[in-house]
Amino acid sequence: MRIDSVDFFYASMPEVTLEADGSQDALLVRVVGDDGSVGWGECEASPLTSIAAFVTPRSHGVCQPVSASVIGERVDGVADISRLSQLVARNSMDLLQAAHTWSGVEIALWDLLGRKLEQPVWALLGYQRNFAKVPYASMLMGDTPQSTLERAREARAKGFRAVKFGWGNYGTADVQDDADHVAAAREGLGPDADLLIDAGQIWGDNVALAIERLPALQKAGATWLEEPFFAHAFKAYSDLAKVSGGVGLAGGEGAHNEHMAQNLIDFGSVKFIQVDSARIGGIGPSKSVAEHALRNDVTFVNHTFTSHLALSASMQAFVGLESHRICEYPVEPKSVAWDLSVDHIEVNSSGEIMAPDAPGLGIRVDEKALQPYLRHVEIRIDGELSYESGALGTPTMVGL
Amino acid sequence: MRIDSVDFFYASMPEVTLEADGSQDALLVRVVGDDGSVGWGECEASPLTSIAAFVTPRSHGVCQPVSASVIGERVDGVADISRLSQLVARNSMDLLQAAHTWSGVEIALWDLLGRKLEQPVWALLGYQRNFAKVPYASMLMGDTPQSTLERAREARAKGFRAVKFGWGNYGTADVQDDADHVAAAREGLGPDADLLIDAGQIWGDNVALAIERLPALQKAGATWLEEPFFAHAFKAYSDLAKVSGGVGLAGGEGAHNEHMAQNLIDFGSVKFIQVDSARIGGIGPSKSVAEHALRNDVTFVNHTFTSHLALSASMQAFVGLESHRICEYPVEPKSVAWDLSVDHIEVNSSGEIMAPDAPGLGIRVDEKALQPYLRHVEIRIDGELSYESGALGTPTMVGL
Repeated sequence: MRIDSVDFFYASMPEVTLEADGSQDALLVRVVGDDGSVGWGECEASPLTSIAAFVTPRSHGVCQPVSASVIGERVDGVADISRLSQLVARNSMDLLQAAHTWSGVEIALWDLLGRKLEQPVWALLGYQRNFAKVPYASMLMGDTPQSTLERAREARAKGFRAVKFGWGNYGTADVQDDADHVAAAREGLGPDADLLIDAGQIWGDNVALAIERLPALQKAGATWLEEPFFAHAFKAYSDLAKVSGGVGLAGGEGAHNEHMAQNLIDFGSVKFIQVDSARIGGIGPSKSVAEHALRNDVTFVNHTFTSHLALSASMQAFVGLESHRICEYPVEPKSVAWDLSVDHIEVNSSGEIMAPDAPGLGIRVDEKALQPYLRHVEIRIDGELSYESGALGTPTMVGL
Repeated sequence: MRIDSVDFFYASMPEVTLEADGSQDALLVRVVGDDGSVGWGECEASPLTSIAAFVTPRSHGVCQPVSASVIGERVDGVADISRLSQLVARNSMDLLQAAHTWSGVEIALWDLLGRKLEQPVWALLGYQRNFAKVPYASMLMGDTPQSTLERAREARAKGFRAVKFGWGNYGTADVQDDADHVAAAREGLGPDADLLIDAGQIWGDNVALAIERLPALQKAGATWLEEPFFAHAFKAYSDLAKVSGGVGLAGGEGAHNEHMAQNLIDFGSVKFIQVDSARIGGIGPSKSVAEHALRNDVTFVNHTFTSHLALSASMQAFVGLESHRICEYPVEPKSVAWDLSVDHIEVNSSGEIMAPDAPGLGIRVDEKALQPYLRHVEIRIDGELSYESGALGTPTMVGL
């Protein structure tokens, strides 16, 4: 099969706020083969910038647009997807955004291949079984410890066995206030649930600021402390890991290639590696990181804050790993993220979720529901049309 | 001073080829303050994609366009530039291209501040002196060892005391052929000149392929082997460094933040760290890397393959370090890269170059010469104009 067209669909809420909520817009990718096969993917990335990286005029031999490594290429099996990943890495070496753009295309190629071969993507990745995962609810810290406590109780009442709190004022207020929030979260969850804390890179590379928060996290029995530092601050991560005791460090959502996530394991000493397939270059690199995690006794966790298409994509890399149980689950996404798919991954009565047991990603895009959210993008260079958003329904050739 | 406008100027050769020659296009940045102060910078990056990262609609609180952290902000001293860098890192955390876009803006802010305070940027960075550097000529490997030998002789005849060969077929042909090229390069240079070899990431993360090339490099007394692996493959770098003997490893041009370059020192064991200010986030982060290099007995080298504006920007971070002598110098740039500035950094009779001893970067943009190279970009979202290239001469407000 030859890749005939790649179309991007930029969907957004009517108003996008300054909340740290990544479900306010979405960039879907549809790939169509010359035999009519269709696959869908998603970039967890800035839509306009990611589209630009697909269509930009080339700057030189290793700063080519992502399209140059995709359109017209053959994909007949999983090895071809890996081959194209290498081609993008080479031809777009100096185009930073390329990894985010390619992520959505790569995911769509897995979906396409799975549908064509009538296999779930996890089976194409070599997994024999699709193990259930324990989803955790992601919540913002409350404005007061009391509101954090109430949120924790609500999450438990909804059946969640693991809950993550973060952002809000956590890490910026004083140490005692942070400690009060963490203690309140534990009180609200009760003793049995997993408590996860997300610092959202708030301490930059300042290890001392993180160390001050450790006693409260240890006392509350937090399972992990997520993203204490900048995504590349491996030295700070490893310094903190030396003294964090039972509180494992987690991170990796910022990884835009498999080496970056592996480095966070090798040099940052995290115990939980969080990978977003829609950012790291797709499902193939995610699986490589899962293998590296397995070799290093590190737990693989997906990062997902958007749609169930992205959720399915990010789950594929580790559904075959029985002991890697915990899973990020977007609990209260904005309507665009929910509406864009016909199928959803529901939490069952045991408080567990499973990746679809269906060809490809097993998530159909709801083109009708998506329509009102779509934004139309047009890029002209020297007066000539370089890019225009395609239409749903009828695949169009990318005008390159 | 308040930042009133940021304009991007996308200049390009009429035809951009697949050569690994980064001087075929340029993205200039002009920043204008409310007191009429002007500064110029350059992004070593995909122009359309970098513009998109400045103007894209926000996706959420930490995936905002670069403009959100710049327009309307005050810059009264060097601390403000660092403050804005931190703001961009926070507000555009999830926008991968932001670092490349911000690099050019940051450089323009240093230029503006230096001109306003009538100080060279290197003086604002705290350096007392501006030491001469030894520029090396960068050349492609010849098609045959004989042509590599002739290129080496030509470079020496032009007065270069250091020459770098790379790309072409190096690393992809057989080991003996590669060895013949390296020996020919040494023969052409004579025994005294520095021989540098650039593998351009050709071996990915395959250490064995690199090790096979070491004996020829050691025999020829190569000073460094540059970018044997992917930019993030630190483990491969450090494994190779253990056996590379007198041939130091060099890398870092792919770094898009200071931690990434520091990691290449800390975990990749390079002996030469190559930093492009127009990619790493500007001059401030470059200076931080230079300080980290100094502490770790690693030599700092600029990476520059474009204009003399970019050359001056990348030199500022290390002109005060007397013993860090070697300097990348674009020897045969395409005309757009040469023409865009009035001033150039010339090689003197001792085969040395110096950063300008003049306010700011000391390189005036040649607006008249630039004009014929300009490309006009227009981006519309839902039919409304989100971005249109500004005009030279009269600064315009960015329409956000």
